[in-house]
Amino acid sequence: MTIECPAPLREDEVVLLGHGAGGRLTAELLDEVILPATGGHGPLEDAALLPGHRDLVISTDSYVVSPLFFPGGDIGCLAVHGTVNDLAMRGAQPIALSVSLIVEEGLPLADLRAVMQSLGKAAREAGVPVVTGDTKVVGRGAADKLFVNTTGVGQRHRTLHPSAALARPGDAVLLSGPIGLHGTTVLSTREGLGFESDIASDTRPLHRLVAALAPLGPAVHTLRDPTRGGLAAVLNEIARDSSVAVEIEEHTVPVPEAVASACDLLGLDPLVVANEGCLVAFVAPTEAEAALTALRSLPEGAEATRIGEVLPDGPAGRVTLRTLVGARRIVDMPLGEQLPRIC
Amino acid sequence: MTIECPAPLREDEVVLLGHGAGGRLTAELLDEVILPATGGHGPLEDAALLPGHRDLVISTDSYVVSPLFFPGGDIGCLAVHGTVNDLAMRGAQPIALSVSLIVEEGLPLADLRAVMQSLGKAAREAGVPVVTGDTKVVGRGAADKLFVNTTGVGQRHRTLHPSAALARPGDAVLLSGPIGLHGTTVLSTREGLGFESDIASDTRPLHRLVAALAPLGPAVHTLRDPTRGGLAAVLNEIARDSSVAVEIEEHTVPVPEAVASACDLLGLDPLVVANEGCLVAFVAPTEAEAALTALRSLPEGAEATRIGEVLPDGPAGRVTLRTLVGARRIVDMPLGEQLPRIC
Repeated sequence: MTIECPAPLREDEVVLLGHGAGGRLTAELLDEVILPATGGHGPLEDAALLPGHRDLVISTDSYVVSPLFFPGGDIGCLAVHGTVNDLAMRGAQPIALSVSLIVEEGLPLADLRAVMQSLGKAAREAGVPVVTGDTKVVGRGAADKLFVNTTGVGQRHRTLHPSAALARPGDAVLLSGPIGLHGTTVLSTREGLGFESDIASDTRPLHRLVAALAPLGPAVHTLRDPTRGGLAAVLNEIARDSSVAVEIEEHTVPVPEAVASACDLLGLDPLVVANEGCLVAFVAPTEAEAALTALRSLPEGAEATRIGEVLPDGPAGRVTLRTLVGARRIVDMPLGEQLPRIC
Repeated sequence: MTIECPAPLREDEVVLLGHGAGGRLTAELLDEVILPATGGHGPLEDAALLPGHRDLVISTDSYVVSPLFFPGGDIGCLAVHGTVNDLAMRGAQPIALSVSLIVEEGLPLADLRAVMQSLGKAAREAGVPVVTGDTKVVGRGAADKLFVNTTGVGQRHRTLHPSAALARPGDAVLLSGPIGLHGTTVLSTREGLGFESDIASDTRPLHRLVAALAPLGPAVHTLRDPTRGGLAAVLNEIARDSSVAVEIEEHTVPVPEAVASACDLLGLDPLVVANEGCLVAFVAPTEAEAALTALRSLPEGAEATRIGEVLPDGPAGRVTLRTLVGARRIVDMPLGEQLPRIC
């Protein structure tokens, strides 16, 4: 879906798929409908500080991925990893998860059992207990099989206070692993495109990578995992919230060959494809090498690399890509939906 | 739906509406599929203690009520009240809410705006900030208009540690207000039965009633709000988890006339109809009058009354009703679904 010039929301309008895509339409819906009603305001972080308990953060996500099962994972482990990672991006270790299910009548119990076992296993592997939950069942046709909400509470590392608003000129932009695997895998599986034999979702927990960065303390300015909207969306959010210009080098961004092929054929830009197992870190330049070493010390960060920097004096909010031939192009905030129901 | 003798779940079976009704089928699903996978175990409380922070509790609920708007409320305020009340039933004041939306493509923005405004107003009136959220959009037909998950964190009153496992022989059973309004209102509105002109949902926050009980401290043994499955379900859960026998007096249970008429015509038992604005308190007999006075000091507890007691030596897990003519009948745990999508 492409909408060239979104007008401000009007009362007679309806919710579009793109409103849930994590791009500009999502931001518009938040700014015009949701935040005014709830008294919220930006910058929007992956997780919020708990009032009165500033060492604790809370994050929530509803997972609606279709299909429920895909190479590399399923909605159960995804729901654990996604929320653990949102907590981690605020510098926190997960201490508790809640799990709330909306089940469509008629879902095979074997599917529900498989999802719950995957969810339980992911939680145990991440070291976080599932402490409470809820189960609702709706009639056939009132939901698509199964939706899972997880909400997590995390305890912050004392030394880490990363925020999307704290990126600074000169910062090194680090990426913990290759991009594009999750989105292309889910899309290929759903549509039966055949790429799914070569690729698998990168869904995994990232809190151990964050723990590895904790000794670097305040040198770690910003952490984000590029899920919906991909690398393009998170870099734009950080550039906006920190009022800085970010530039990345195309040849340094790791895009697996199978992802590149899939994106070519599907007309997708790997920069906007969702990931569920890598993070972006903005780190003071003096600590960039130490941060890379820390990330690479863990299997999930083995392919960590430096992909760019915060420009010393670029226009605030601008993200650019230096292409292979040395040209610069602007990396826009994705508008709406390229890949619905990807997480 | 009536199933006389539920067999143990088999792998070739599917999820039924009754699995989400808060009765025996829900308990079976939890015991056989969900809790073994996540490592959970009973007694199941409305909210869980946060590991490492025993003064904090967490609770989650997904709201799938249909229709979205009904006399007395809508899915927005219901999602605030329901979660605030689950926290309150563990003796806690709400300190933070997360809100996660699953929206069906095509929902009028005016409806979303109205729900969010109601949600925001309810949160402000309950004194709890919405600190974080999430929005997903799914295609037409993949959800029914709008589902709302709220997860709340609450801070416990120092003096209150109520639990479903702490009811004791001799306890007075108190009810803060009339039963049956929410369930009959939603059902009547959904089906266009006409009762909805005479009744309205009782959806409201109950944490102020709990605060009023706080000075009674450890004399308050158990608090529960009778939502899905109604009074019958919560009394059975408490009798089971506390290993006690509970007896209530039919003539003392406040059932509004319009609720009684609706239930008569629909063949429903008011004891199993969902409520969203009353609580059951099990209180040491010496403090029963003080507790009633405390509850009646607030508008939402003005009709608080004593409806029964924990028998000194009845069979563990048994709930009985003394009828108007002095006979006793057993109040069973509701099996499955009388009223789908009621909250």
